[in-house]
Amino acid sequence: MAEPRIRVSSIDGKLAQEFAVPSHVEEVKAKMSAFATHHAAAGRSVVLITSGGTKVPLESRTVRFLDNFSSGRRGAASAEYFIDSGYAVVFLHRHRSLYPYTRTFSTINMLDALQFRSGEEVSGSSGGVVVDQQVLPNVAKVLKRYQEVKDGGLLLPIEFSTLSEYLHLLKAAAQALGTIGPKAMFYLAAAVSDFYIPASEMPEHKIQSSNGPLQLSLNMVPKILSPLVKDWAPQAFVISFKLETDATILLEKARRALDTYRHQAVVANVLDSRRGYVVVVTPATQAELILTEEDVKNEVEIEERIVSNLTSAHSQFITQQAS
Amino acid sequence: MAEPRIRVSSIDGKLAQEFAVPSHVEEVKAKMSAFATHHAAAGRSVVLITSGGTKVPLESRTVRFLDNFSSGRRGAASAEYFIDSGYAVVFLHRHRSLYPYTRTFSTINMLDALQFRSGEEVSGSSGGVVVDQQVLPNVAKVLKRYQEVKDGGLLLPIEFSTLSEYLHLLKAAAQALGTIGPKAMFYLAAAVSDFYIPASEMPEHKIQSSNGPLQLSLNMVPKILSPLVKDWAPQAFVISFKLETDATILLEKARRALDTYRHQAVVANVLDSRRGYVVVVTPATQAELILTEEDVKNEVEIEERIVSNLTSAHSQFITQQAS
Repeated sequence: MAEPRIRVSSIDGKLAQEFAVPSHVEEVKAKMSAFATHHAAAGRSVVLITSGGTKVPLESRTVRFLDNFSSGRRGAASAEYFIDSGYAVVFLHRHRSLYPYTRTFSTINMLDALQFRSGEEVSGSSGGVVVDQQVLPNVAKVLKRYQEVKDGGLLLPIEFSTLSEYLHLLKAAAQALGTIGPKAMFYLAAAVSDFYIPASEMPEHKIQSSNGPLQLSLNMVPKILSPLVKDWAPQAFVISFKLETDATILLEKARRALDTYRHQAVVANVLDSRRGYVVVVTPATQAELILTEEDVKNEVEIEERIVSNLTSAHSQFITQQAS
Repeated sequence: MAEPRIRVSSIDGKLAQEFAVPSHVEEVKAKMSAFATHHAAAGRSVVLITSGGTKVPLESRTVRFLDNFSSGRRGAASAEYFIDSGYAVVFLHRHRSLYPYTRTFSTINMLDALQFRSGEEVSGSSGGVVVDQQVLPNVAKVLKRYQEVKDGGLLLPIEFSTLSEYLHLLKAAAQALGTIGPKAMFYLAAAVSDFYIPASEMPEHKIQSSNGPLQLSLNMVPKILSPLVKDWAPQAFVISFKLETDATILLEKARRALDTYRHQAVVANVLDSRRGYVVVVTPATQAELILTEEDVKNEVEIEERIVSNLTSAHSQFITQQAS
């Protein structure tokens, strides 16, 4: 059963009224526009990846906030596979979440991976410092690829922290990539809050614990997928993500999202198994992507399979739109 | 006006009942005990620093959580100055918050700071990788100090993420350091949540946004400073932190905390000015620590001043206890 269609104009209005506009949004939008136009002209598809969780402040001078569980691993890994598949990537990610290529070293304290070039330790603070490749065996390979991607200008990183920043930057990105039509893909992997406290209802100062237990009343975040699909980038290929902890409601929720927003695909996954099992749901199909034990042993990542599935579908989509 | 004294036994009971005990707590406690005993025997004082914010889950299979604003900068910087002052440091910090020494490079993507040793780029993946000291001019100095501290065994890092982990590990730390009497200092700089949802009232699965706006009801976190001062480490030198956004209530709240918990000092600070101004409040004194423009230009950090003030007070405290 489809949810009632959502009025787009009211969402756009709410966005302007209740979520503070980041001061740099126009500047970022111009950058994303130039990036998209440049790569589309060179024959490349452009994907916008959103990654990491959003921060929802509880006070205007913020000490406390609501957050969503997300390391940003899926978004960062996917960015690498999209680039390997010939895409240019706008990487709209939570400040300090995992980053493409660098993610490989995220569990290591950088200073544990460095050493003085032999014999130079004694000479003190001006000596050469090298990477210990016993600690980081892949560093040369990863660095080489990182530098190629940087030199090729294939990755445009944009940061957000709060929900407000995320919403306004996503709108700007959608409008910027909307201009290249079906060559644009949206891969909305960020863990976005469903709830927020409107600025008008937010206390200015730190909530005092001496006032006793805390009652919080949170509003629902406007469903931005709706204007994105209908207004901002109506020709683009749009993928949303659905994460649940309860597997029994997952596929029904994925289908309902497709019915409501009329976009191209939902990547559905369950919290506990998300690294080894996802279902790509489209209006006409349902593909299970699974890592076998063999895959895991070979360090295959499920993001490689997800990206492979979606880039194929996107190619078909582009061909259909052209005819 | 003092708050009514808090019953300690009820806090300890609540801790056991309503906050899940981390499985490794006894192992960590043994490590901290051995660390404290070893350094105290060598004539060193030992400080427990808590650092970073606590995560408060809203669901037992957690997708959403409450968090406290804190990069962990104050705790990480302070750890370095305590070590410089001859202390051994137990660093109880939030997973992925800023870390002593490494914090210097926290704003830099590691791969932007690395390069192939000249001429080896072409040879590909087996080449030598060195740090570009134009990007990280202090790396040799910082690495040298990091290695000295590591070789000296002066820093014991312990991680927490959730409020439950924080509370149980702090209790374990207090009991472990309690055995060395007045030579132990507690420097409680972590941004700990005042509110939580008890396990019994927490939904198992991800809260559904289709159910409409969210009402959250949060209980007050037990004031663990009370049993710490009275039972777990009654001879130790204990410093708590008070962060407010409203400067007008700050000092009164600091004094009230000293009246209630009967510990040695409160470091009071206001969110917006915390990097340049703090007040160290003790039952008998009140010291303003201020960075001048000159200090800022010379990259002096206020943590150096805080640590200098407190290590002096701690020395006096040790002498008094001995006589």
